[in-house]
Amino acid sequence: MQYVKIKDSIVEQIESGMLSPRQKLPAERKLAESFDTTRVTLREALSLLEAEGRIYREDRRGWFISPLPLRYDPTQTLNFPEMAQAQNRVPKTELLSAKGTLVNRQATRLLKLQPFSDVYRVDRVRYLEDRPVVYVTNYIRPELFPNLLQFDLANSLTDIYREHYGVVYQKIGYSISSSTLLGDMAQALRATQGAPAMVIERSNYNQDGELIDCGIEYWRHDALSIESIAELKR
Amino acid sequence: MQYVKIKDSIVEQIESGMLSPRQKLPAERKLAESFDTTRVTLREALSLLEAEGRIYREDRRGWFISPLPLRYDPTQTLNFPEMAQAQNRVPKTELLSAKGTLVNRQATRLLKLQPFSDVYRVDRVRYLEDRPVVYVTNYIRPELFPNLLQFDLANSLTDIYREHYGVVYQKIGYSISSSTLLGDMAQALRATQGAPAMVIERSNYNQDGELIDCGIEYWRHDALSIESIAELKR
Repeated sequence: MQYVKIKDSIVEQIESGMLSPRQKLPAERKLAESFDTTRVTLREALSLLEAEGRIYREDRRGWFISPLPLRYDPTQTLNFPEMAQAQNRVPKTELLSAKGTLVNRQATRLLKLQPFSDVYRVDRVRYLEDRPVVYVTNYIRPELFPNLLQFDLANSLTDIYREHYGVVYQKIGYSISSSTLLGDMAQALRATQGAPAMVIERSNYNQDGELIDCGIEYWRHDALSIESIAELKR
Repeated sequence: MQYVKIKDSIVEQIESGMLSPRQKLPAERKLAESFDTTRVTLREALSLLEAEGRIYREDRRGWFISPLPLRYDPTQTLNFPEMAQAQNRVPKTELLSAKGTLVNRQATRLLKLQPFSDVYRVDRVRYLEDRPVVYVTNYIRPELFPNLLQFDLANSLTDIYREHYGVVYQKIGYSISSSTLLGDMAQALRATQGAPAMVIERSNYNQDGELIDCGIEYWRHDALSIESIAELKR
């Protein structure tokens, strides 16, 4: 099929280095002309490339070549800045909001709380080389971390837990699924509405086996590759 | 946006039980009429629902409500039939082909082999309740499993390894990423070309720490939810 051939051709240009990470693709009309095809067919090829994590779209700015994904092991204790720097990436975290609130359905499930419990909710966006890649929401049990909101929560939560409360993550439960970026979340990641997302939900336990916080991460799906190694459980 | 409202409305019908797993959606024209909208807007809503794993499309048959995803822990030693039955699902495995061949680039990477090494390649499709959900390709080191091809490879490889060769998986390395279903793989899973896929690559080690085989799984992305729990590594 023609759109698959166009897709393969662009993949070849990426893999040979002719197209560089973060490079902006030409306008769709020009691309279609260069492949001697219709815009409809060209869009099918772009849609395939996006689904395969080769290109991404920024709202009202066009298509870009995806950089290498971050290798993300959910079972590692590294925080995002450490994980990124260990792979020669440039991390940045922006705090969007931090507040006390009543727990919602998702946090109730992930933290095994009663309805109407109090939680802290922290929303942040993380960047690699100034490209926003993940929208993270953390729900935190406030009775374990009194006055947490006084700290600068653009910084690593795990550092704050360890340095100010003597708490470390011991164990984590996580799940991974596919979804889309919508609403404010899409906007914060500069994505078009409905862009593909990889969602990681994490529930974190302290050294006493208590659930202490959880995180819901909506990743630009091309921005990460989840990788881990484990002894098999029997 | 209207297509988001239509999407939310269909999600509500699914969650309330008005629409059942595997139920076929009405034709697009009828759906558009029932929402008093255009086919273009309706298709945007369907595209969103597909990306969120709520519905799936079978080639030339239409749209269907997605069943509950299989909970898949890549660090569990359960094989597919055991994993499925433990969740009251009905598994089936179909052998597509099994042969000796020269290793390709992907298998070279996953098994750390020299170019032109011999491998066994086994292609299979797995079903849940007679719905094809994953296309699995295994590459196996033949010197560790002489005469492997004589066995019925629709059955569990791990059972064959254990019962006939005394080999068990001890450790696994895995990676998870997003991609699409194309070509024969899409056809085998009854998907339209370009349907979203979750790809799991696994490299498996025996009790002596040797790499023994690897598997590349292309899942219908709505068919699984990857879930695990782990002690954090420091």
